[in-house]
Amino acid sequence: MLEEILALLQEKKYGKARDILLQNNEVDIAEILEEIMENLGVEKTVIIFRTLPKSVSVEVFSYLPIDDQLELIHVITDKEIKFIMDELAFDDMIDVLEELPANVVDKILEKTSKDERKLINTFLNYPDNCAGSLMTPDYISLQKNMTVAEALAYIKKEGMDSETVYTCYVKDNGRKLLGIVSLRNLVISEDNLQIDELMHEDFVSVNVYDDREKVSETFRKYGFLAIPVVDKEERLVGIITVDDILDVIEEETTEDIERMAGVIDHSDKEYLDMSVFHHVKSRIPWLFVLMCSYVITGGIIASFQDMLSSVISLVAYMPMLMGTGGNSGSQSATLIIRGMSVDELELSDFGRVLWKEVRVSIIVGVILSSLNFARICWLDGQGPWVALTVCGAMLVIVIAAKVIGSMLPMLAKKIGIDPALMATPMISSLTDMVSVVTYFLMASVILGI
Amino acid sequence: MLEEILALLQEKKYGKARDILLQNNEVDIAEILEEIMENLGVEKTVIIFRTLPKSVSVEVFSYLPIDDQLELIHVITDKEIKFIMDELAFDDMIDVLEELPANVVDKILEKTSKDERKLINTFLNYPDNCAGSLMTPDYISLQKNMTVAEALAYIKKEGMDSETVYTCYVKDNGRKLLGIVSLRNLVISEDNLQIDELMHEDFVSVNVYDDREKVSETFRKYGFLAIPVVDKEERLVGIITVDDILDVIEEETTEDIERMAGVIDHSDKEYLDMSVFHHVKSRIPWLFVLMCSYVITGGIIASFQDMLSSVISLVAYMPMLMGTGGNSGSQSATLIIRGMSVDELELSDFGRVLWKEVRVSIIVGVILSSLNFARICWLDGQGPWVALTVCGAMLVIVIAAKVIGSMLPMLAKKIGIDPALMATPMISSLTDMVSVVTYFLMASVILGI
Repeated sequence: MLEEILALLQEKKYGKARDILLQNNEVDIAEILEEIMENLGVEKTVIIFRTLPKSVSVEVFSYLPIDDQLELIHVITDKEIKFIMDELAFDDMIDVLEELPANVVDKILEKTSKDERKLINTFLNYPDNCAGSLMTPDYISLQKNMTVAEALAYIKKEGMDSETVYTCYVKDNGRKLLGIVSLRNLVISEDNLQIDELMHEDFVSVNVYDDREKVSETFRKYGFLAIPVVDKEERLVGIITVDDILDVIEEETTEDIERMAGVIDHSDKEYLDMSVFHHVKSRIPWLFVLMCSYVITGGIIASFQDMLSSVISLVAYMPMLMGTGGNSGSQSATLIIRGMSVDELELSDFGRVLWKEVRVSIIVGVILSSLNFARICWLDGQGPWVALTVCGAMLVIVIAAKVIGSMLPMLAKKIGIDPALMATPMISSLTDMVSVVTYFLMASVILGI
Repeated sequence: MLEEILALLQEKKYGKARDILLQNNEVDIAEILEEIMENLGVEKTVIIFRTLPKSVSVEVFSYLPIDDQLELIHVITDKEIKFIMDELAFDDMIDVLEELPANVVDKILEKTSKDERKLINTFLNYPDNCAGSLMTPDYISLQKNMTVAEALAYIKKEGMDSETVYTCYVKDNGRKLLGIVSLRNLVISEDNLQIDELMHEDFVSVNVYDDREKVSETFRKYGFLAIPVVDKEERLVGIITVDDILDVIEEETTEDIERMAGVIDHSDKEYLDMSVFHHVKSRIPWLFVLMCSYVITGGIIASFQDMLSSVISLVAYMPMLMGTGGNSGSQSATLIIRGMSVDELELSDFGRVLWKEVRVSIIVGVILSSLNFARICWLDGQGPWVALTVCGAMLVIVIAAKVIGSMLPMLAKKIGIDPALMATPMISSLTDMVSVVTYFLMASVILGI
C-alpha cells in the first residue's frame, strides 16, 4: 500500500492518495506519513497532510515521532500550528512544546490565555523522568453531591475534551482528592444515587515527582486504566492514562537493557535514526572504562610471567576460566537486576540472595569442574595436577563470580547507583581479575611453581 | 501494618485483623495474605480469608500468586471452590483451572452447564503463548440497529459480568465482527442515534493464535484499552484487556533479558521462590555449552604455544583484547536484539545495520587502539612493535565483534531462532575465538615469530 501511495503522490494524485490513506487507523496513517516524509521530503508530506480532515490530521500529528512533528511545524503556517496546538491532547501538546526552540514556544503561547500559559509553563517545568511529565490536566471532575444522572449529563457535555472519561475524580474545595468513580459504576448504577455513595475512597495515587518507573510499576500492580497525580498537599494536579504508560515501559526497559550492555542512553531515537557519531558517543565511554580495568588484569598476569613461561600450557585454559567466570557472574547479576527492577527483590533480601547464590554456585561449580577434570585428563592428555589446578580454580571462580554478580547490583542500589550498570561488562571485568589471581595462586600452590 | 495483622492473628483477634485488612485495596490485601500464608501457614490464612466479604474475597483470590491459589483451594470446601470459580472473571478462572490437577478440574466442571463446560475446554486448549490464552469471552455485545439509549440500558443490565464495558462489540449473525463502539462515544452521543452510525469499522484485531508478544506490541502501538480476538473466519471469539497485557509485557521482557544472559526460562516463579535445584537447572546448560566453546579457543592458544613462550609478555594483553571484543560485540548485539523486539528493526534493514556498525566500529576501534598504543609504549615500556601488534589486533577485533554482534541476532531471527539467545554469552565466546586468532596472526606477521 505504501508503494501505491508513494506512486500516487509522485503523479500528484493527492485526492486518491488521501482516500487510500483514510482507510487506515490514525496510528497507521502516521506510520505511512513517516515513510512519505523519508522518501519524498517534508514539502510533499505537508501537501497530503493538509488534505486530511482536520480531526484526523491532529490525531495523526500526535502519533508522529517528535522529529517529524518539528519538521512539519517548520513548514506549516502559524494558523495551522495554533489549530493543532489547540486540538492536541494537553499531554501531547506539552511533549511537542518541550522540543521546540524557546522563541517558537513563546510565539505559540502568545495567543493563549494567561491562565493556560501559566498551566503550560508549570507542566513544561516538570523534570523529564517524573510523573508530572506524563500527566494531563484534562480529566472529568465531579462533585460529591451530584447524582448519577447529573454526573452522566456532565460527562456528556465535557467528555469530548477529557483525556479519559472512564475514571472520574471527586475533589473538595481545596482541590484535595476525595475519591474516584468509574464510568462503569455510573452506567450500571441507579440514576438518583449520589456520587459520594458510589466513589472509592481507597484509591491509589502517585506524587507528581515520583519516578516514571514507579508510576509504571503501580499501573502494572493494580491494573488501572488511569491514575491520579497529586502534589505533596494531596491536591489533584493531573492524571496519567495507561496508554501513555505502555510507551514509558518500553522506553524504560530499553534504557535498562542497553545500560546492562554498557550502552549509554541514546535519547529517544531509534537505532537507524541515530548518527554514527551518536552511536560512537553512546558506546565508547564504557568500552574505555572497562579497557582500563584490563590494565590491572594485564598487570596481574605480567607479574606471574615467570610462572607462565615455566608451564606455558596453563595459558590455554585462561579464556575458559575467565569466560565461565564472566558468564556465571552475568547470570546472577541479570537475575538480581531484573528482580529488583520489577520489585520482586528488595535490599532486605540481601542475606537470602547471598545464601541462595552460594548454594547454586557450589553445585554449578562442582558439576562444571568435574566435567572439565575428565576432559583435561583424557582429551588434552594433561597430568592430574594441571587438571586439578584448572578445576580447583574453576570452582572458586564460579562461586566468586556468582557472589560478586549478585551482590554488586544490590550494593549499587543501596548507594543510589542504577543497578543496571552492574551488569555483564562490569561484572565480567571484575571476575576476570578474580579469575587470573585465583588461577595463578592455585597453580603456585598445587604445581609448586 | 503487616506486623500488626500478624500479631492480631497470633492472638486470634480475627475480626480486628479483618478490619485493618479491609482498609486496603484488594491488590494489597492479596499481598498481605501472601505474607500471612508464608509466615503462619495456610490454615491460619484460610480463617482470615473466610472473614472477608464474599465479593472482596473473590477479587483478592484472583490477585494471589497461582501457588497460593492452589494451596487455598486444597483446604477450602467444594462449595467455596464452586463459589469462587463462579464469581471469578473468566480469564482468571481459566488461569486457575490450567494449574489444577485433572481430577480436581473434572470435579469443578461437573457442576457447570454443558455449554459452559465446552467453552472452558476450548479455552483450556489454547497454547500458553498465544492470544487465546489471554482472552475472555465476557464482553458486551451490541446489535447494530440498537439506539444509544437501548445500548446503555443493555450495558446497565449486563455490565456487572463483563470484563470491560468501555469497548463494546457489534457482530453479524454469523458472529463475524462488524465494528466496535466505545462507551465514551455512547455516553457523549444523542440517545436516538443508532449503533451502526457510531461504530468504528476500521478496528484492529488479533488472531486467536497470534503470539503474546505480537498482542502486546499491538496494544502499545495503538494505545487500546481492549482488543478483539478473532478466529481465521474473522469471527469474534473473545477480547483481551490492557490490564492483562501489562503483566504479559513484564513476563516477556524478563524472559528476553534472562535469555540474553544465558539463563533458561524458569517458569513464572520469582527468584526467591525458585529452589536451588531449579536455579542450577536454569543456569547450567548455557554455561556448559559456552564452556565447550572455550575448548576450541584453548586449542587455538595451545597451537600458538611456542610463539607465546618466545614473547611471554603478549599473554598479559590477551584479557584486554578478549574483553574489549566481548564488550563491543555485546553492545551491538543488545541494540539489535532490542531493536527487533520492539519492531524498530526489520530483517530488511540488514544492509543498513551492517553499514552503520562498520562505520561505528572503525571509529571506536581507532580511538581505543590509539589510546592503547600510547599506554603500552609509555606506561608499560614495551617496544613499538608489541604495541602495534596489540593495537592492530584491537582494531580488527572491535570491527569483527561489532559485525558479528549485529549480524548474528538478525541471522538467528531469519532462521527462526529467538535473537535473544545471540546475546552477550554467545557473542563473547565467539569473539574470544576471533580475538586470539587475530592477535596471534598479527603477532606472527608484525613480530615475525
